[in-house]
Amino acid sequence: MKTYEHGGNINSFAKKLNCKTEDIIDLSSNINFIKPKIDINFNTLEISSYPEYNKLFKTLARNYKIKNTNLELFNGGSSAIFTLFRHLSLKKCIIYSPAYLEYKKAANIYNYKTTLINRFENRYKDIPRNSLVIFVNPSTPDGKYYDLKKLFKIWKEKNTTVLIDESFLDFTKKSSAIKYLKKYKKLYILKSLTKFYSSAGIRLGIIISNNKNINLIQKNEPMWKISQFDSKYIQEALKDKKFKKKSLSKNDKNRKKLFKLLKKQSFIRKVYRSKANYFLVKLKSLTAKELQDRLLKYKVLIRDCSNFDFLNNSYVRIAVKNKKSITKLKLAFKEIEKNVY
Amino acid sequence: MKTYEHGGNINSFAKKLNCKTEDIIDLSSNINFIKPKIDINFNTLEISSYPEYNKLFKTLARNYKIKNTNLELFNGGSSAIFTLFRHLSLKKCIIYSPAYLEYKKAANIYNYKTTLINRFENRYKDIPRNSLVIFVNPSTPDGKYYDLKKLFKIWKEKNTTVLIDESFLDFTKKSSAIKYLKKYKKLYILKSLTKFYSSAGIRLGIIISNNKNINLIQKNEPMWKISQFDSKYIQEALKDKKFKKKSLSKNDKNRKKLFKLLKKQSFIRKVYRSKANYFLVKLKSLTAKELQDRLLKYKVLIRDCSNFDFLNNSYVRIAVKNKKSITKLKLAFKEIEKNVY
Repeated sequence: MKTYEHGGNINSFAKKLNCKTEDIIDLSSNINFIKPKIDINFNTLEISSYPEYNKLFKTLARNYKIKNTNLELFNGGSSAIFTLFRHLSLKKCIIYSPAYLEYKKAANIYNYKTTLINRFENRYKDIPRNSLVIFVNPSTPDGKYYDLKKLFKIWKEKNTTVLIDESFLDFTKKSSAIKYLKKYKKLYILKSLTKFYSSAGIRLGIIISNNKNINLIQKNEPMWKISQFDSKYIQEALKDKKFKKKSLSKNDKNRKKLFKLLKKQSFIRKVYRSKANYFLVKLKSLTAKELQDRLLKYKVLIRDCSNFDFLNNSYVRIAVKNKKSITKLKLAFKEIEKNVY
Repeated sequence: MKTYEHGGNINSFAKKLNCKTEDIIDLSSNINFIKPKIDINFNTLEISSYPEYNKLFKTLARNYKIKNTNLELFNGGSSAIFTLFRHLSLKKCIIYSPAYLEYKKAANIYNYKTTLINRFENRYKDIPRNSLVIFVNPSTPDGKYYDLKKLFKIWKEKNTTVLIDESFLDFTKKSSAIKYLKKYKKLYILKSLTKFYSSAGIRLGIIISNNKNINLIQKNEPMWKISQFDSKYIQEALKDKKFKKKSLSKNDKNRKKLFKLLKKQSFIRKVYRSKANYFLVKLKSLTAKELQDRLLKYKVLIRDCSNFDFLNNSYVRIAVKNKKSITKLKLAFKEIEKNVY
């Protein structure tokens, strides 16, 4: 059986199980299980004309408490990452790992010499001068939030350019690296809106930096990158003032529930503390693939993390979703416990 | 007053005139005035998951009578162009001009030495070896369809890579350069679906080439480039079997009407024969800006073509739209005729 590496494979998984996509409990992808209220009729949206993004820029800038001129839009986080690597065109990069795998791919395509720093060990050594630093905060696949103060000091000493990926920051109440923008001239922050706003089908990612850096990126970009539908969706999602609070509290509640459940299992060696909407789990007496396979008959899909750097085939990632998913997982785990050894 | 250079400025135009966008008669943008029938409820579209493009690829491949493996998707024609210039990374390019201005921009960004060949003069000379050839067919801003047989022979002799931009081909009954794909290994064809399918708010462009070329492009591309909304829109639009025929006949009818009207005006020196949904017009006794300004009070927006290569401030482009727009233009022209000199 093919290993499901990211959250995009739910359809093929359903096909394999010969069931409907809706019947799958997808704990492999980190999409918010709470959805914003969208009060717009997409069927009557005017899409004949070329899109104008003024309002979208304004809405996003307000949301992050920055200026319009501090951001550039891309059709997804992945596109933003590729563009930034190409645009900066540096020689070396450091990826604090494990991390989102697109970073290694981008580094490879644009000929960066890559150094991987194991986040779980010493984060302060082996930082080559003048490199591009990639730090995902909160991290993936484990969801730890790092205070970056000390690291920023070292990164500055080493004259690095820094990209902080905050795709999952909205799931926490922690502060953004935006506060470092004024002090740190070579800082870029990535926001992928698709996770928190439960809309991976919407292609929108943002790079935030100072005016001058954003200008330089925009100079080389094509026109009209964002769909009019997507632009409207996000503007509407950001209007839902209750959504953030509701998301935080519901995710918090279910995160605790899931943590408790995971901690109880005899086939789990370690559950990593997470601020995000997923848990990294180290298994014992079962491999990631074995657990994945055993969950098949419950139609539960989890993420095999063996292809992440510094992890191996004992690691899986399990997303925080609704109550029903946790109940289903509990049931499945009960059966699995019976036959672990 | 600012010159309106492309079709994306209708909102600012409406603001200037202090009227609603709907009240503007936009003859500056080349979007089909016939719209496909879209039988889908976008409000219930599942957008939480990452998009899968299998069906979209299949639908598009079937539409162009090619294989799935002969195409790659981009979030718009402009993105496709930029990616291709970067990907090919050649030293020289030839742009048969006047042409869509994004080509010069892309060539400039990716450090191509650019030669402009005046399409209206000798198309067969001055072709540097090993260059990237850009040919828009039917052309813009004039809408002429060229038989490329002789040119392909010369391009091949000169070992060029060729991009044929067929963004407006659907408005004609003429044949696609797809027929040259087998013979010509370095041929790429661009399809921008937003014009014919009346959906500039949808960001979807396609590059067609042989299997091997498409593979090489895809290797360096980010994931999930197309919005789920846009993917569904185009799949639905392509299901409307009456749309193509209806579009062709209605555009044909109004093209003739508009041609007749334009030919009658004493302030127009020449109307270029067009196969597409727009006319290039050479003015006499009025500049492009003057005509634009005189059309202001009729809320009619046309395209000033003075920034196109080999054209000057006597040229405007006027789009083929509905009957009402032609009637309005007729009325405006009547008044303008009275005060031309």
